[in-house]
Parts: sequence; structure tokens; C-alpha cells
Amino acid sequence: MATLSLAEFQAGMTDETIPPIRAATRVEQVMLAVRQRIASRELGAGTKVPSIRSFAHTLQVSTSTVVEAYERLAAEGVIQARRGSGFYVGGHASRLSLAGLAGSGARRDRAVDPLWISRQSLDAGDAVLKPGCGWLPAAWMPEPAVRRALRALARAPGASLTDYGTALGMPALRQLLARRVAEHGIEAAPDQILLTESGTQAIDLLCRLLVEPGDTVLVDDPCYFNFVALLRAHRVRVVSVPFTPTGPDLARFEQALAEHRPRLYVTNSALHNPTGATLSPLVAHRVLKLAEQTGLTIVEDDIYGDFEHDAAPRLAAFDGLERVVHIGSFSKSLSAATRCGYVVARREWIEGLIDLKIATSFGGGRLSAEIVHGVLKDGSYRRHMAALRGRLAQAMAETRARLKPLGIVPWVEPRGGMFVWAALPDGLDATAVAGCALAEDVVLAPGNAFSVAQTARSFLRFNVSQSADDRVIRVLDAAMRSARRSGNQK
Amino acid sequence: MATLSLAEFQAGMTDETIPPIRAATRVEQVMLAVRQRIASRELGAGTKVPSIRSFAHTLQVSTSTVVEAYERLAAEGVIQARRGSGFYVGGHASRLSLAGLAGSGARRDRAVDPLWISRQSLDAGDAVLKPGCGWLPAAWMPEPAVRRALRALARAPGASLTDYGTALGMPALRQLLARRVAEHGIEAAPDQILLTESGTQAIDLLCRLLVEPGDTVLVDDPCYFNFVALLRAHRVRVVSVPFTPTGPDLARFEQALAEHRPRLYVTNSALHNPTGATLSPLVAHRVLKLAEQTGLTIVEDDIYGDFEHDAAPRLAAFDGLERVVHIGSFSKSLSAATRCGYVVARREWIEGLIDLKIATSFGGGRLSAEIVHGVLKDGSYRRHMAALRGRLAQAMAETRARLKPLGIVPWVEPRGGMFVWAALPDGLDATAVAGCALAEDVVLAPGNAFSVAQTARSFLRFNVSQSADDRVIRVLDAAMRSARRSGNQK
Repeated sequence: MATLSLAEFQAGMTDETIPPIRAATRVEQVMLAVRQRIASRELGAGTKVPSIRSFAHTLQVSTSTVVEAYERLAAEGVIQARRGSGFYVGGHASRLSLAGLAGSGARRDRAVDPLWISRQSLDAGDAVLKPGCGWLPAAWMPEPAVRRALRALARAPGASLTDYGTALGMPALRQLLARRVAEHGIEAAPDQILLTESGTQAIDLLCRLLVEPGDTVLVDDPCYFNFVALLRAHRVRVVSVPFTPTGPDLARFEQALAEHRPRLYVTNSALHNPTGATLSPLVAHRVLKLAEQTGLTIVEDDIYGDFEHDAAPRLAAFDGLERVVHIGSFSKSLSAATRCGYVVARREWIEGLIDLKIATSFGGGRLSAEIVHGVLKDGSYRRHMAALRGRLAQAMAETRARLKPLGIVPWVEPRGGMFVWAALPDGLDATAVAGCALAEDVVLAPGNAFSVAQTARSFLRFNVSQSADDRVIRVLDAAMRSARRSGNQK
Repeated sequence: MATLSLAEFQAGMTDETIPPIRAATRVEQVMLAVRQRIASRELGAGTKVPSIRSFAHTLQVSTSTVVEAYERLAAEGVIQARRGSGFYVGGHASRLSLAGLAGSGARRDRAVDPLWISRQSLDAGDAVLKPGCGWLPAAWMPEPAVRRALRALARAPGASLTDYGTALGMPALRQLLARRVAEHGIEAAPDQILLTESGTQAIDLLCRLLVEPGDTVLVDDPCYFNFVALLRAHRVRVVSVPFTPTGPDLARFEQALAEHRPRLYVTNSALHNPTGATLSPLVAHRVLKLAEQTGLTIVEDDIYGDFEHDAAPRLAAFDGLERVVHIGSFSKSLSAATRCGYVVARREWIEGLIDLKIATSFGGGRLSAEIVHGVLKDGSYRRHMAALRGRLAQAMAETRARLKPLGIVPWVEPRGGMFVWAALPDGLDATAVAGCALAEDVVLAPGNAFSVAQTARSFLRFNVSQSADDRVIRVLDAAMRSARRSGNQK
């Protein structure tokens, strides 16, 4: 297993010099300045944008730079030209401020807009292949067990079918979850577990409880792109720390704590998304020590935990739920149609989370909890996961073998799961490649969508369960050739 | 039907003079000042609270006032005394700041803490009676139809059971919803309808899209208490306008628009919660005109729409979804266990809401949508609702007849639904009565829980479907006697 950080790996990957992350051009800086003023409501819908001359003076750029920026913004529909009267903010200022959800501020291609990748994957028709998507095909899910649970539920007492769940959620499922997390060394009573509609909603509630607008939150670079979209919805500053094959780069982590005083660190311990890397006990221990010293709270998102062959250390187990909150869900392993996630946390925080859950979504999804409990309680889920892990290991080997002739090399050998995080050869721009592939109905996940610091320009995340179709490799190969030809090779 | 406003009605209800809303005492003001400093993090967990002498000077109150305030806060666990060293903020500052979710700032009894009423109702065992709760008993819900839908789903294609839904949510359900809202005169294409996990989540997403922390939002006085808890989670200022039997008091509404420049107005058009009152066409038209003049956006929560005997006007129909957003859900009429709500809005807002839905909860509850669609698509739901409306009308008449001997008079004759909003005789304090009843395992809903301006001191909201048990009246009668005795009669 490599022990280089992502940046080191990327730098050493090819003999050619990879240029540093491209700085935003002047035009892009002007565009960003306008977007920021719209996002902050300094410029409301329908208001006049500063004149070209005055804005050029304000930003100390040439008028031609502002002209180009305004024209590009007009092409995007952000502002509108009115003949003889200058530019005005479009009617949808609130919506536009959402652009900030997706991007790190600098210009983003739609192909690396995380929300857009999610929407492509969610809305893709059957003809579209999705090697870039973050979940398994329906055929790989424990469909018979879900059908059995539905039939059993059709005979359950009426309240299970029509009434609200309790504030914490179905007691029997929480008891079962307490036993499951105990297998990872996390000691939690059932009343320290709150059921949510999803792992994402769990993190969302934690953000509502623990962060204020303007706080700083740490994430990994790279990290699951929706973390960033979610955090931006909470108006926090997102700072990333390079991820190594054994966890966050400790020196950079310590430096980030000192420099930015983050309130939260959101990460995956087992089978990190997108890299498939795993936290080592040594790094886990050091991260916790640093967290204790600086009062940092850690959100450990463990939604890929059941995909591990051998259990990696869990921060929540080392820490005893003092400053670590543990998150799980069954969307990836059991059913994404049945929304059910959970938070394991210290009791005081659970109290606050209940109030927030009621305020923002009222009762929980009792039916979903019943179905998940129905599938988990007999042995079929464990058998299904054992078989699934074997199937994924084989798909992983096959996908790697098929990517190798294209010169695509995995960054690390994952200990399980569905993801291969791999670099394109010759410093090819993954965003350009993803754009070409999308035209051929293949959704790829370009690296920079996962990178706050935009350090993963040449990377792609492959989902091995969605990559078996020959067309994936054919289209990828063609897209790489096309990207080379059109001069995206740097 | 009465045409008095709530305050007028209350004032005229008894010959005795009802005192004005009790102003916070000095001690309560000091307590509030400490809470605010904790909520704003000016005072973090474990930090020292200002000394008694200095705080007395800051707030221009006597030291004995501060002493009493600190002692009460210590009794509540908000701060802790350390011998010889003064008072310190307790360990759970984050959680404490949540107190702001529930209250209007002034001291709140737990019995009028909206979140606590919700939790009592959600977590109540079978022995507890819940005339104060906001939904129907399980036995009144269309259980056979839900069972049928579950059995059909157990035979559905695998993707329906295990895969994520599309970004907007199940197309067939959105088509059906488009036809349903058209029956109320709301013209919306299926792609103007976004499925959510609940009506509450729909409003939560709208707040994320349309308001900024510090904005002002208008609600009715009284209003559904969870609106206020939800809005406080968004850090907005909540201002209320008195509600009359035909909608908001127009003069006060206009005044609030001029004075507070609210960004949103959140209301129910049909069968207003808690009063059961209905917007008149005249008031609807005037409200929309005022909204247009001031750029106000209106969120029309229509979750009790299917309980109407005759359709009241919908703001969204008059407005054509220009500045009104229409919300619905099936939690009250079909199943609360199956979480499924929806937003009907102009297309640009739907785009922004999709991004926010993905960022904060990722995919939607496909399974819930399938079940709701299964129940709605055949005629059984319509038949069920027709029968339910009849059953509720009878329960309404019975409940009124049983309340009358206690001197409890409905404020307005509702045109349907499950709620009676009624005043206690002799200016009795409903919070005191609710406290006594709770000790006897009867959950009541005291008026001030619904009133931001705390103008509903003597009111209770009765759910007629949960009030048939003789014990409700017996316990209520005893609680009223007890409240009278203990001098809560004013």
C-alpha cells in the first residue's frame, strides 16, 4: 500500500510536471465578486450591477476584464443586459446564491459540480451507465429480504403503518443498532441512538446543533462531495486537510486546527469515500489527541462500515462518544428507497437533536425503521453482506484489470467497498474526460468534485459495481483520446 | 360565525377583566439576558457568568434580582454555583441555546413548550390520552388501504424497493398531485412539484432557500406551534399577526409588513391550525395584494386540505404560484408512518429546492412515495376521506356538547377538520390546567403554545378524534377545579 499523500502521489505519478492548481483568472475573480454580492444580498434580484467602469476601478482590473465577466455571467443567466442601461441581477437571486453550495468559490464546470453529478446519477435513465455514482445497482441489493419485510409489515399492527414514530425512533431497531455498534467497540445505550431519515439528515441535524454560520469545519481532501454541499448550506467555512492512505495528514491537520480553530471535523473512518483508504490506529489516536486539546468535535460517518472485510478502528470506539459522534445508514447496503439513518452520540446531544428533528421534520419514518428492522433481525442481511463483499472484491479486481491498459492506476488498494480512486495518465484533465463521457451517456465522477482545494484534477472515482459494462471502458478510452486531442493534456 | 379577533373575543368572553399579557418580571428579564448570552455563545460552556454586582449594574437592576435569577438558572441546570467563586455556564451550552427554539424569549413553562408537547404526544404510551395532539388515532387512518399498498409494493420491480428516487421524486405521484391541486384551482405541471419527506421538511427547505438568518418571518397568532420552532432553527425573527375567523387581521397585517419588512408569511389557508378558521376570498385577495406591493413570499401549508367539506380559497390558486408556495402532506390523512410531503412552486424555486434537498437529505423516500401513490391511485382514499369527514363532524358535535357544561366555548365553528379552539371560562390559565391534566396522563395543548405574542392564555386546542374518552372530560374538569383552587384564576 502506498504511503504517499494524494498530492505527493499525484506529483510523482508522471515524469511530466503537473502544474499547480490553476489559479482563478482575473475574469473569474470578477465573476466570483458579483456572485458573492448576489449571495450576500448586497445585490438583490432586479438591482443594477455596478457599472463596468466603476467595478473595474473597485477591483483594480481592466474594463475589458469586467466586460468579459459580465458577458459570461449574462450567458449563465446570472445577470441580464438591458439595452443602453447596463446589467441587472436576474430574477432568481436567492437561487443563484445556491451556486455557493456546489463550488469552492472558483469557477466550476458543471461536470465537477457535486450537486449536478448527484442529480445526473439520481435522474439517469436505464440507458445511462453510472461508473461515477456512489451506490450499488438495484440488482445488487437484498431485494428478497426487503420484499419479505414488506409482506410482514402488511400484517403488522395498525399503528406501525399509520402512526408517527417515537421521538428517538423505533425502540427495537435502536436496541439492535446498539448491539451492532458494540461489535465495533462503540458502547452506547439504545437511548444514545437517534433514528433519522438518512445519514445525510443525521449530519444535517448535527450541524444545526453544533455549528453557527461563519464557523469553520474541517473535511478531508478528497472527501465525499455532498459533505461540502451540506456544510455550505449551513453557511460555514469549509477547510480541507490532505488525506493519506492511513487517514488525514497529521502535520497538516494540526496546522489546520491551530490556524482555523474548526468546530467540527467530518470524515469516514472505514472505507473512506472517495479513496477507499482506511484510518490506521496510530493516526486515529493522534487525531483524537489533537481534537481533545483543541475542543474539536468529530463526526464519523460510517455508512460504508458493513462493506469492510476486516474492521478498521472507529474513532467513536477510542473516544467513548466523548467528542466523537458516530453516523450510520442503510442506504448503501440495504435499501436507498427506505430512508433510515442514525446518530450515536452523548446523551445531552441526543436531547438537542430530538428537538431539532421535531422542529425540522417532525416524526421519523416509522415505516422505514420497521422495514430496516425486519431485514436486519433475521440472519439474511449478514448473509447478503458476506456474499456482497465477495462480489465486490471480484468486481474490484476486474475493474482494476480493465482500467490498467488505459494507464489508470489506483491510488491505494482499498480494503473493501465499491470505490477505486485512480489517476488518469499523463495528467489528463478528469473534468474534460467526464464531459466527453457524459455526451455518450456515461456519468463519471471527476476528482475535483471531491476536492475543496481542487488538488485532484486528474483523478476519477470508479464504482466497481457500476463499471462492468464494456461500454464504460470504450467510452472512457474515447473520452481520454478526445481530451488529449482537444489540448486538455497539460 | 363570530367575526371578532382572538383578542377581542377573549376580552369579551367574561365579565371579569382579563389582565394584559403578563410582562416578564425583572428576575425573568435577567434570566433571559443570561440565556441570550449563552445562545449567542458570548458565554461558552464552562465560562464564568458576570458577577452579581457587575451584572446588576449592567442591567440596571438590584443585586437581589440578579441573585434570584442566578439561583433559578442554577436550579434549572443552566448555570452552576462554585463555592466562593461565583456562577459558571453548565457543560451543555450548545443544547441550552436550543431553548430558543421553543420559547418566545420570555420564560416558558414546559407545559407550553411546543417541542415538549410534541415529544409528549409522540412518546405517549397507550395509557395516555392525547386530546391536545395534532393527529388522528391510528384506528381512524386508512389502514386496509396502506396494507394493500404494502402487499402490492412487495411485488413491485426491485428498483422501487432498493434504489434512490429521482431528484424530484416519483413521476406518477407528482402527476397525480398535479391533478389533485388543480381541483383547488392551482395550475402546476408535475415538474413544479417536488416530493419531500414531510410537510415540515418542505417548509424547512423553503426556509433554507428563501430566508437568511436575521430575516423576519410573519406567522398567525395563534399558529401551528412547530412553525415557530422550525423558524427559530433558521435564526429568523418571528412576528405574529392576530388571526380572525376569516384570516389575518388586515390592518395589523399591513402594519407588520410596513414595520418589519418580513421576507415570508407562513400560514394555513384551509382549516387553520389551531383555530379551524378559514380564509375568506376577500381577505385572501387583500393579503395577496399587500404581498405583491411589498415583495412578500407566502408559504401556504395545506396539510389539512382533504378534511374540508367545501373548498376554501387557496392563495396559490389566486396568485398562480407567482409569490405563493403551496405545501401538502399525507401525514394527517393517510399515514404518518409513511413520510411523504410535497412543495408546489414556480420552477426556479423548485430548481433551488432540489439542490438543497440533495445536499441535506440526498435522495427522497421512494418507498414512501410508492405507498402513498398506491393508496391514492384507486378510489379507496377518496372514499376513506369522505367517511372520515363524516366521522369527524360527529365527533366535533359530541366534543362540543361535552365541553359546554364545563363552560368551554369554541371560538369559531370550524368548517371541518379535527380541531376545536376554545377558551376556558373565568379566564382560567390553560397552562396551569394542562399541567394538572398531564399529571393524570392527559396531554392538553394550552393556547399560549400556539401564540408568539402570548395572547391565548385561556385557550385550549382540542382534537375531537382524541377526546371521546370520558376520562378526558373528567380529568379536564378536575384540572380546572384544581387550577381555580390554587389561585390561578385571575
